[in-house]
Amino acid sequence: MVKVGIVGFGNLGKGVLSALETAIDMECSVIFSRRVEDIAKQVSNEILVLNPENWKFSDLNKDNMPDIVILCGGSKDDVPIQGPMFAKWFSTVDSYDTHAKIPEYMQEMEKAARNNDNVAIISTGWDPGLFSLMRVLFKSILPCSEDYTFWGTGVSQGHSDAIRTIDGVLDARQYTIPIDEAINSVRSGANPVLSIREKHKRVCYVVAKEKANLDEIEKSIKKMPNYFSDYDTEVNFVSLEELKKNHSELPHGGFVLSSGTTDRYQQSIEFGLKLESNPYFTGSVLVAYARAAYRFKQQEIFGAFTVLDIPPKLLSPLSAEDLIKMI
Amino acid sequence: MVKVGIVGFGNLGKGVLSALETAIDMECSVIFSRRVEDIAKQVSNEILVLNPENWKFSDLNKDNMPDIVILCGGSKDDVPIQGPMFAKWFSTVDSYDTHAKIPEYMQEMEKAARNNDNVAIISTGWDPGLFSLMRVLFKSILPCSEDYTFWGTGVSQGHSDAIRTIDGVLDARQYTIPIDEAINSVRSGANPVLSIREKHKRVCYVVAKEKANLDEIEKSIKKMPNYFSDYDTEVNFVSLEELKKNHSELPHGGFVLSSGTTDRYQQSIEFGLKLESNPYFTGSVLVAYARAAYRFKQQEIFGAFTVLDIPPKLLSPLSAEDLIKMI
Repeated sequence: MVKVGIVGFGNLGKGVLSALETAIDMECSVIFSRRVEDIAKQVSNEILVLNPENWKFSDLNKDNMPDIVILCGGSKDDVPIQGPMFAKWFSTVDSYDTHAKIPEYMQEMEKAARNNDNVAIISTGWDPGLFSLMRVLFKSILPCSEDYTFWGTGVSQGHSDAIRTIDGVLDARQYTIPIDEAINSVRSGANPVLSIREKHKRVCYVVAKEKANLDEIEKSIKKMPNYFSDYDTEVNFVSLEELKKNHSELPHGGFVLSSGTTDRYQQSIEFGLKLESNPYFTGSVLVAYARAAYRFKQQEIFGAFTVLDIPPKLLSPLSAEDLIKMI
Repeated sequence: MVKVGIVGFGNLGKGVLSALETAIDMECSVIFSRRVEDIAKQVSNEILVLNPENWKFSDLNKDNMPDIVILCGGSKDDVPIQGPMFAKWFSTVDSYDTHAKIPEYMQEMEKAARNNDNVAIISTGWDPGLFSLMRVLFKSILPCSEDYTFWGTGVSQGHSDAIRTIDGVLDARQYTIPIDEAINSVRSGANPVLSIREKHKRVCYVVAKEKANLDEIEKSIKKMPNYFSDYDTEVNFVSLEELKKNHSELPHGGFVLSSGTTDRYQQSIEFGLKLESNPYFTGSVLVAYARAAYRFKQQEIFGAFTVLDIPPKLLSPLSAEDLIKMI
């Protein structure tokens, strides 16, 4: 069994643990979380729980030393720091999703992983991740095409996390909502030119701390670069009770559509997801890529990689003989 | 520019040539076809046309010697013979689509390619090919899921070719038609158990030669293993004029859907195609995999491979810097 460490035990960490429980070849051996006692009560006795801020290598023995760790913190504050740190000690997989900063993050992870004979697969999950893979695949097959990515309606954890980092915010949920007019135009094959703002809007439900300045919070959200500044954003303040009652699930979805021509023929390709739980699905994708990272490490292929570098067979626990039957 | 040879210049060969014309890094340098004079008139003067049955290496010079050849003949009679033969001389890509015989074909191609320091990527296209890739990807991410593949409504070239090999048949078109009841059940998330016969039916339009025994033809079609014997098959005899008028285009499509659970959550993934021309789309897929085969050869990674072995970045002409921006 491949031993896996989970760094961060929020929704995504729980999704990863659940995916590991159904994997026939992998198991969770250690969880790194600041809430050591809390988490230890929630999970199996066989899983060691360590504080990521004050653990030592000697805390690990041969039974729980991870072959690979999966980084499950937020992309805004956790992963940019934890990634390069953990990649020095272990091979890693993460779902770093600040698209604009991925090239810079890739360079840092490449340095940390390669210098320590480790593997780091960055920015997996579904977008970035599976959707990135589809965008490149579609453009490779149909060079004369336009591709469109739509998300939602669903809760974006990255955007919800980003709101939570703002002073005065207790909790928040952010829904990404695709704009019908844009979807209809794309599905018609019209290949429209759409701005970021024309494709999606963002609707936020925010619980403010007592005496917080609501105007300031709303302004801070709306001007946040990468996350909100390019969108029409609606901010609604709600009570903690209301947030828990109406916004506690984390559904999501979306699709990548590529529409183009080969000679005189119209061709279209579409890849779509309908998810009752975004973090549990994302966790399942991370676990599949953790399997690939482990195999790269076994083959001594070190450094930082993305989904574009990974031969698909490395994601599967099946044997070569079983895989060829699925062709 | 990577130089590409096309073996067989029917619909698929034309699709490959069209795809090469839009590729920024590849060009067609030679076509192998029994109809040498005919084809030479149809294509650019810069493309050499050779007879696959009586050409010599000395017919090729440095300007038209292909870096890779794409096999565009039928899977029933052409590719099983041409594949192992051409893989001795050149790196190859093909769309061999007799699913049941792929493992056996893979072994033959592995021997021919590896012994001659060549690369052979077999069974690409969309099914097998992209759909195979999706089936493996989906099962790797959602081990607790059922996956379903539906094809059509569209013309299957492989099945049409198979009918044409029968004594007394002049021409034929075969439509693969998904059965609505099955699609509805799958899309509902019911994860039904469906036999091959319950998912699709096959409808054939056949032009018989003069004095041919129609009963014999119909029986030969319906009992053909792999192609027709497991399906409800309808055979209609039509005139050549009627076939040309009503059945001359080659649209196709289909989808792979995987529906399963992670913990208590229902998750579904779908990959679909809507194609006005099957051979032109398949040709575009073959060209993308030819790019990957060329790069494997450059890296001295020899032998036979499937879509499951190929890192997605190798399909794209874009640079590493441009690709990371698409993540």
